[in-house]
Order: sequence, then C-alpha cells, then structure tokens
Amino acid sequence: MTARKVILDCDPGHDDAISIIIAASKESDLEILGITTVAGNVEVEKNTINALKVKDLLALDVPVVQGASRPLVKTSEIATEIHGESGMDGPELPDPVSIKSEGHAVDFIIEQVMQSEEKVTLVPTGPLTNIAMALVKAPEIKDNIEEIVLMGGGTFGNWTPAAEFNIYVDAEAAKVVYESGIPITMFGLDATHEVIATDDIQKRISKIDNKVADFVSELLVFFGDMYQEHFGMTGGPIHDACTTMYLLKPELFGFRHVHVAIETKGEFTYGETAVDLLGVTGRIPNTRFAHEVDQEAFWNLFEEILESYGGVEAYEEA
Amino acid sequence: MTARKVILDCDPGHDDAISIIIAASKESDLEILGITTVAGNVEVEKNTINALKVKDLLALDVPVVQGASRPLVKTSEIATEIHGESGMDGPELPDPVSIKSEGHAVDFIIEQVMQSEEKVTLVPTGPLTNIAMALVKAPEIKDNIEEIVLMGGGTFGNWTPAAEFNIYVDAEAAKVVYESGIPITMFGLDATHEVIATDDIQKRISKIDNKVADFVSELLVFFGDMYQEHFGMTGGPIHDACTTMYLLKPELFGFRHVHVAIETKGEFTYGETAVDLLGVTGRIPNTRFAHEVDQEAFWNLFEEILESYGGVEAYEEA
Amino acid sequence: MTARKVILDCDPGHDDAISIIIAASKESDLEILGITTVAGNVEVEKNTINALKVKDLLALDVPVVQGASRPLVKTSEIATEIHGESGMDGPELPDPVSIKSEGHAVDFIIEQVMQSEEKVTLVPTGPLTNIAMALVKAPEIKDNIEEIVLMGGGTFGNWTPAAEFNIYVDAEAAKVVYESGIPITMFGLDATHEVIATDDIQKRISKIDNKVADFVSELLVFFGDMYQEHFGMTGGPIHDACTTMYLLKPELFGFRHVHVAIETKGEFTYGETAVDLLGVTGRIPNTRFAHEVDQEAFWNLFEEILESYGGVEAYEEA
Amino acid sequence: MTARKVILDCDPGHDDAISIIIAASKESDLEILGITTVAGNVEVEKNTINALKVKDLLALDVPVVQGASRPLVKTSEIATEIHGESGMDGPELPDPVSIKSEGHAVDFIIEQVMQSEEKVTLVPTGPLTNIAMALVKAPEIKDNIEEIVLMGGGTFGNWTPAAEFNIYVDAEAAKVVYESGIPITMFGLDATHEVIATDDIQKRISKIDNKVADFVSELLVFFGDMYQEHFGMTGGPIHDACTTMYLLKPELFGFRHVHVAIETKGEFTYGETAVDLLGVTGRIPNTRFAHEVDQEAFWNLFEEILESYGGVEAYEEA
Repeated sequence: MTARKVILDCDPGHDDAISIIIAASKESDLEILGITTVAGNVEVEKNTINALKVKDLLALDVPVVQGASRPLVKTSEIATEIHGESGMDGPELPDPVSIKSEGHAVDFIIEQVMQSEEKVTLVPTGPLTNIAMALVKAPEIKDNIEEIVLMGGGTFGNWTPAAEFNIYVDAEAAKVVYESGIPITMFGLDATHEVIATDDIQKRISKIDNKVADFVSELLVFFGDMYQEHFGMTGGPIHDACTTMYLLKPELFGFRHVHVAIETKGEFTYGETAVDLLGVTGRIPNTRFAHEVDQEAFWNLFEEILESYGGVEAYEEA
Repeated sequence: MTARKVILDCDPGHDDAISIIIAASKESDLEILGITTVAGNVEVEKNTINALKVKDLLALDVPVVQGASRPLVKTSEIATEIHGESGMDGPELPDPVSIKSEGHAVDFIIEQVMQSEEKVTLVPTGPLTNIAMALVKAPEIKDNIEEIVLMGGGTFGNWTPAAEFNIYVDAEAAKVVYESGIPITMFGLDATHEVIATDDIQKRISKIDNKVADFVSELLVFFGDMYQEHFGMTGGPIHDACTTMYLLKPELFGFRHVHVAIETKGEFTYGETAVDLLGVTGRIPNTRFAHEVDQEAFWNLFEEILESYGGVEAYEEA
Repeated sequence: MTARKVILDCDPGHDDAISIIIAASKESDLEILGITTVAGNVEVEKNTINALKVKDLLALDVPVVQGASRPLVKTSEIATEIHGESGMDGPELPDPVSIKSEGHAVDFIIEQVMQSEEKVTLVPTGPLTNIAMALVKAPEIKDNIEEIVLMGGGTFGNWTPAAEFNIYVDAEAAKVVYESGIPITMFGLDATHEVIATDDIQKRISKIDNKVADFVSELLVFFGDMYQEHFGMTGGPIHDACTTMYLLKPELFGFRHVHVAIETKGEFTYGETAVDLLGVTGRIPNTRFAHEVDQEAFWNLFEEILESYGGVEAYEEA
Repeated sequence: MTARKVILDCDPGHDDAISIIIAASKESDLEILGITTVAGNVEVEKNTINALKVKDLLALDVPVVQGASRPLVKTSEIATEIHGESGMDGPELPDPVSIKSEGHAVDFIIEQVMQSEEKVTLVPTGPLTNIAMALVKAPEIKDNIEEIVLMGGGTFGNWTPAAEFNIYVDAEAAKVVYESGIPITMFGLDATHEVIATDDIQKRISKIDNKVADFVSELLVFFGDMYQEHFGMTGGPIHDACTTMYLLKPELFGFRHVHVAIETKGEFTYGETAVDLLGVTGRIPNTRFAHEVDQEAFWNLFEEILESYGGVEAYEEA
C-alpha cells in the first residue's frame, strides 16, 4: 500500500503540535503534503510561527502555508485562555529558521488536491475556515478528497454549554464541510476527553529521552495545568492528536455512522454539532463519529511514537 | 414538619402514572392539592382520562383538572410512538368512575398557589404549557411557589439529537419557566436514564402482589418494549418518577447548581436545554440539575412504595 | 342587520382612546361587549386606569377587564417615549369613578365569545397577548369569532427597522393569532401612516365644541408633538382608530388579501410581519391587509363622529 | 481628476449587461479593471459567457474572470424564472469570441485592489459571494477599496416578502460585506423600482439606431415582459444600471446615511436588509442608501449613453 497523502490544517496549539509530531514520526507512513494554518486558538500569524517551530524541531521537509485570519462570516474569537499568549505557551522553542511558503492555504489545498493522482485526506484540527473556503472556491476538489478527518464538536461543548471551540469559532465553515458530501471522520469531545494526559501519562512521557518527547512533556504540563484550572480536569485532553493517531491505527477507536448537523441559528447553541446517535432525524449519515477509544493501546502507541524520535536507545546506539 | 403541598402537572403517560403512585403512597408525606393535565404524549383529553383511571386505582381523593390542549406558541406534537394510542397502553384499567373537576388547570394552579398559606411545589412531568400560562396570567404566584420539580431536558436529547420530548413539545413554555426566577430542580435524561426498569427490576416488581404493583408491572413491560424497539435500551427509564422520588427522599440524587437556558431559535436544536455544567457562560445558576442517582437506594425505595399498597403482608394481616 | 358585537382589546394609549370614542359614538352601531386591557405602551394597570377614564368621559356602560401584564414568552418592553409616563399624557382627565370588573381579560374574552349567539369580532389595538392566551386556553373560541380587526405590523417598522411596536412587544402572541385560521383584517403602518392628524386636521377638530372633542384635541396635540420629535412626522398617526373606523365604514379602506407571517427567530427582524404582497411564497392568504385609505372620507367621518358627542348644535337645541 | 478604477462584479443578467454598457460608454470616465462573474441569476458559467458576449458587443478590452459557483454557506438558488434559461434570454448575441481569463475572480479582485496605486471601487450587481470571499481571504484589501457600489436589498423584497434576490442568494456574504467597514453605496429596490423601462422608455430607446441600443431594446422588451408576468409591473426595473449611472452622475440620486444590517437567522426574513431609516437602532451608519431618483435626468442620460455608441448622427458623420 502506498503512503496516504494528508494535509494537516491546524492552529497550533499544543495538541495540534502533537498531532504533527505523530504524523511525522517513523511510526507513520503518512505523506504530509503540507501544513496549513488557520486563525483559532490565536491569530493565524502566531499559529504559522508555531507550525514553523514544530517543523524545525522535527527537521520536517514540508511546506507550511498560512491561511485564513478570520472566520467565514462571523467575527474572530481568540482563545488565549487555554493556549497562552503565543498559542503554544509552555515549552521554549527557538524562533523558526524555516519560513512559510508563498500563497494562501486555501489555494495550496486546492492545488494539492487537484494535482494529486491519489485522493488526498484533509486533517483539520482547528476551525474549518480554510477547508470551507477551498470547497466554496473550487467545489470540484470534492471528488479527489478521500476523507476529512477532523477534531471538532461532540455531543457536549467546552466553549459554550453546547459548542466545542473549533466549531464555535466558525460554525458556518463547519456547515459547509458537513454538508459537502465528503466522508467525515469526526473526533469530538466524546472521543478526545478519553485521551487525557494525566499525571501518570505525563510521567511515562517524561521518561522518554529525546528533544521531541521533552517538548511534548513540557506541552502536556502547561496544557494540563490550563485544563485543571479552567475545567477542573485531571489533565489536558490531547484532542487533535486523535486525528493522526487514527490515521496511523484506525482500530484504536470505535465509531458510529450517524448524521451530524451544524447549528448556526441558535441563540444558545451556535456551533453545536447535533449528532443523531439515536437515528431519530431520518437524515442520511454523513459522519463516522468516534465514540470510544482503546486508551491503553492509544498511550502505548503514543509512547512508541515519541520513542521513535530517538532517546535512550538512540544514544546507546550512538 | 408539615406535609409539603404539591400539584402534579402531567400527561400520563406510563411514567407519569408511576409518579402519581409514588406521591400518593403511604411512604409519602406529600399533600397532593390536585392533578392537572396537559397535552403531550397524547391529546389532553386522553391524558385526563388516564389521570382519572390512576386516581380510581389508588382511590385517591384529589381533583383532576384538565389543562392546555396545545403548546403556547407552536403546533402540537403527539407521541403515540412511545406511549401507544391511549397514552398509557399496556395495562387494562377500567373506564374511570371519577370525573374531572370544572375549570382549567391554569386557573386551578393559580388559585391553589394563591390561597395556600405555605408555599406550593409544582411538579410538572409533561410539557410546561400549564405552568407557563399560569406564570403569564398571574406572575404574582411566583412568590408562593416553593420550587418547580420537573422532568425534562438534559445534556442530550431523545426526540431530536438535541432535545428531550417534554421541552421540545413546548420550548417557549419552558423558556418562560426557566426564566421565571423560581427555583428549579430538574430531572433531565442524564438522571432519568439512570433509572431504567430492566428485566431484573421488572422481576422484582412483579413479585409484589397488589393491584397497584400489578399495574406498574404491566406498565413497565409495555414501556420497556417500546424503549427497546425505538432506542435499543434495555428497558424503559421511568423518567417522571424521579420527581416524586426526589420529593420523598432528596438524597437519592446528586445535583449541580447551574444555569440552564432554553433554545427556541435553533434550526437543529429547538427545545434544547443548554446546561452550563462547566460554568463557561457566566450566567447565574437557575437550576439544580440532577446528574447522578443512587440506583440501589432508588429501587429499594421504589419497591417499598409499591409494597406499601398492600400485598403478601397485607393479605397475611387480613 | 343587528349590531356587530365587539370586544376592544387595548393599551390606551392616545390612539386606543380615540378608537374607543369612535366605537362608542352615536355614529356607531357596534355593540361593545367590553374593553380589555393589556400591557404595551405602559404597564397594564395604567392602561386599565386610562380605559376607565375614557369610559367615564363617555359615560359608557361596558365592563373594563384587565389582562396580561407581560408578553407570552419574552420580557416586557414599555414605550413611555411615545405616550408619556401615564400612557395617555396630554389631556387632564379626572381619576376614574368606574372600577374595573373582576377577573382576567383572557377569561372575559373566552366567556363572551362562547356565550354569544352571534359571532364576536375582536378588535386588538395593543400587543396580542390576551388574544393569543385566549386561543391557547380555549381553542374552541375560534369557531365563534367573526374576525380579528387589529392594528399592528406593516411592511416597515417603527420600533425597529423591521418591526412595529405592537407586534414587536409580543411577536409570539402575534404568531399564535396569525396562524389561528381566524380571518384577520390588519391595519399596519402602511395604512395608519395615511391618517396623520396634521395641523390642519387638528384645527378642524379643535373647532368642535364638546368635551369629547376637546379631549381628542388635546390628545392629538400631545401625540403629534411626540411624533414630530421622535420620527420627524408632521403629526401623530391615529393608528388604532383605523380599526373602529373600518368597522363603521369598511369602504374607507382598500385591501389586499395576502399571507402574513410573523418573524420570531430573526436577529434583526424579530416581530416583523412578512406581508406577501407579491404572492411569491405560495402560502394561502390569511389576512386582509389594508394598504390604502380614502383620507378625505376618513377625516369627514371622524369629524361627524366627534360632533355626534354634542357641541354648538347641541347647545343651540338645548 | 483621473479616471475612477472599478471592478464590475456581476451575474449578467439583463440589467447587469446594461450596467456594463453604461460603464464602458464614451460618456463614462470609469477605468474598468475587469469584469468578474458570480453565480446568481443562473450558473456562473452561463454568466461568464454572457459577460463575454457583452464584452464582444462593445469591443471592450478588459479581462473577464469567473468567480464563485455557489454561495458562501448555503445552497444555490437559480432564478431562470426572470432571466430565462441562458440568464440573458431575449436578444440573440453571437457566441463569444473572447475567452475568460485564467484564475478566480476572488484572486483577481484581491490582486487588482492590492496593486492599484489609487483606491479601487467595487461594483457588485449580483450576489456578494466574490466580494465576501476576497474580504475573508485578504482582509487587508479593505484599506485600498474606495467604496462598494452595489445593487441589492431594500426596505421590501422581491424574492421573498422580506428579501431581494441578490442578498437572499447569499445573505452570509452580504453580512460580511456590510460588516466590513468599507463605505457602501446601496441601490436597493426602493431606488431601482423608480427606474422602470416602461413602454414609453422602450420606445425612446428603440429609436436609437446602433447595435448596442438595439441589444438594449431587445433586453428591455424581454425583461419587461417577465416583470409584467411575474410581478404585474409596467416594465422591467433596470436595477443594476443604477450603480454605474451613479458612478457617472451621482446627483441623479438622493441618499440617506443609515445603518443596514443583514438578517441571516430569520425564519421568514432570511436575506432581508434591515435599513434603519428612522435611526431607532442607535447603530452607526454604514451605508449610503439611495431612496430617490431624478427619473427625467436618469433616462435622458441613459439615452445619451446609448446614442454615444453611434447611430443616426454617427452614420451621418460617416
């Protein structure tokens, strides 16, 4: 089987960074066509810098292309509460040496999809603005998209009682994506809250001795403290990582094939993903909704991925 | 302590009937001022007949007053799928001998509340139309209402992906109630799906030998089959019974004090109760939201309640 | 032909007062079953006092029954900007000698409609809360209502860019009324802005020499100043008077039979009456929409009505 | 004064074609940077062909660039009822010799605006999808846009009771544009229904003897018949032509500086432009709203424009 081609569309972001690390690891056979950025947790410029920092850390040879600086219709929301001022507070990474590529993420996505012989998989882990704009600008890309594997939504919210942050930031974009007819694999809060980097997990990670694992460790500590403070959780859920973990090993997750609708009109429910788990709407399923995680296997693989970046064994080899 | 005065506002309905049985039992020290009916599961006339049948079964000396035959603003929805054509299919009860009282439930509620020396507790287990109309017609009743203990809503839905049936039927009425400033104790699906009358429970109930328990047994069998068929559940949740069980023994439940908003504008989320469990909205809590149940204690008390209607011991005494 | 039976449901209010004066005049063959009040321009208690003052002024022998003090679903809006603190600022009328009747307007409307041998015409000139509540409480009254002749709405707004005050105050009530299936004759701003009491009109009225005409003159002066100040108009439109003028002489107005829908969900258009003048919606007409007025005939009749209350000729006769 | 630089963004469309003819005439000192097309009256491909036909007719040396084939968020609406199957039925124009330029209208707009030394004026006469996408993709273009002179909306509707077609097709795009902060000059139905090509006007035009005027004559006949049939009007309003007529001679129109909000949530009012003519909202004006037309001067200028394309005099000269 040939490598699966992916575009990582993200707003790094602690868990976005981890998602890239997973996709770029030796455990992965994904071919990363590029990393595109979008406004979300912080301004898009900061997200681009964070993506470049991660690229440098991993010595990753893929283009980083900047995308939308605002949502499709509504006004921006910036989430420095959770990710800190830089969007990736916590670990200190050097200023990036790499520079972003010319052009706009929307065009990069369209070009990559149109010129690829095999179908491309899009992996959005931020607001869906870039993906929606690409679909509006060039609806013909649908036919060459394998699947959209995204982090967003859920049967409950974290930004409002009804809405998860990524979808809330740009619900109109989410509506475009979910109504596109492209197969969607969705990691909402139901799944991502199953993969919390608790103290135990943090300890396991901290024992891995390489600079990537060190970076992840520091991310998890900062992120965990934030989730503790804001949501009273026992650690940070590494939401976005679910997408690439799934691409490496789909059997980590259990899915329901259901219809998901995006609420854009509600007074208290803007940005909700109405997940028809009971099949009461009669609407045709458009989404594979992740609802369970094999946590043990998840963290074991995660550990292997981080170890694959070198460490004790690597040093011993040297 | 004097008996707590309650008005049971309902649309019987299998679980409404059980709720009345609990309130009227020897285990209860509630003073039932009356039973009022509302359109919901079926037409209000059928619900009134069902309420009268239950009254006769229990030889209960309280007025039954018919109320709203339609929602406050929108058009009716009738739920024969779940409760059958009569609204209480399953057990065969004789046609009622009792007759309903004159007047309208809305006026009955207003009069009872206004003329009571102590504050009255309203216990709605159907759509909130009667309660909302009473509050609009006579806002001054607020001051003499102790608490509204209701079944409705939840963090997920059963009638749509987002909405529970009682709230969905008349979300505008729910909005009036939740914005009234009256203390609300809410048993939504989060709590009521914890009290499912599984086969085991059904067996325990079936061993109790009196006509009330027999009636309940037959209700549970019919209701359970319906839930199995429609929702793939292992039995019927006796939703409405939570309200009166709570009034008998509050410590059966765990609560969170949160803000709940009612969605009336959404395209896919009409009738949702947006429950701010994370406190992210900054709105002042208006609801004690039941989120956990001591199931063992619940069913034990339930058994005692049904036994209190007579049975083996009663016969032996005779 | 027997006298047409009407209930005047209002929030007096300058133009409401004029509407009553028209209905009660010798030129009118209407049988006023009662005057019911509703919150609107000011609190319902003030509106009731104003109605009683007008009743006393006219020595009118009809019950005045107080109704809803708040809208059906949303929170109250009070419009002292236009009508002054009392709701009928300007003329000084003595405190009322009459007192309001027992009971609630909603019940009065239901009883009057149900016990009348002929069909009854409802004439709401305030928010539609009472009418909607009567329809929800006793849907069977529909069959004995001849017509609802109302002031409200229009193809443009005065309270917001999209909504007229009466409908804006309680759009949910308006929705109930417009969806009821009862024939509606609607005097919206399109018609009422054709009957502005300009300086010329005010002069003509001021020459009529009786206490009712005096009262109307003073109303018009105050009301006209308010409209000048707030809307830059050349006088006050006597909105509500259109309803009873129509009942006296239908040919004063030109009508279109169209569908009117009530917007309750819009972000900027809450309370708009969407009038399908072009027939583009395909919805079945539910409303006779007044769109033109024979102004000359209107003001001539208005003058005759005021003269019928006595004056120069009356004195000479005496 | 140097020529004003404009981009004509349109969905020709009878009146769009006339708008181009005005802008390209000898009477005009506008510098047309390009013509961009958008889905609207018919599919974007047809609109592009129609634009190319008009370009050929006028021997116009400007790029035609195709744009959005669907709205920003919602699903397409196509209006063949009014414009016929081709989007410009009526006159027979030869298949275009010109071909469209490479690239997407969104990028063309961004590039032209960014590279122009003077500020550019955008003239959208179709749905606002291209303009909104440009603003989302490159918010920085705002600073180099002089003004957006558009045809759309009004205080009443033609496609629904509340909404005009251009705005209804893509209300979300309109929201982006109206909230952008760029000065907007708006020709809604209030203005455009003042410029109806009645039989008299058609006769005047038909006397002008050149191929452009002939084409316009045939357009007006077809368009007029359509408006007669669908809306019972005495001729077709040449809506879009107002935009370029204004650019040639601003004093043809009277304006109010008001706030306009775009309704995207309403049940019956989606796509309404809520025009705050009374200033009741307190929102800061964002739009110069055309509310009156000097009709005589308008048609005189229009005649001169068509005559400038040659004709009797031209022939005599030759």
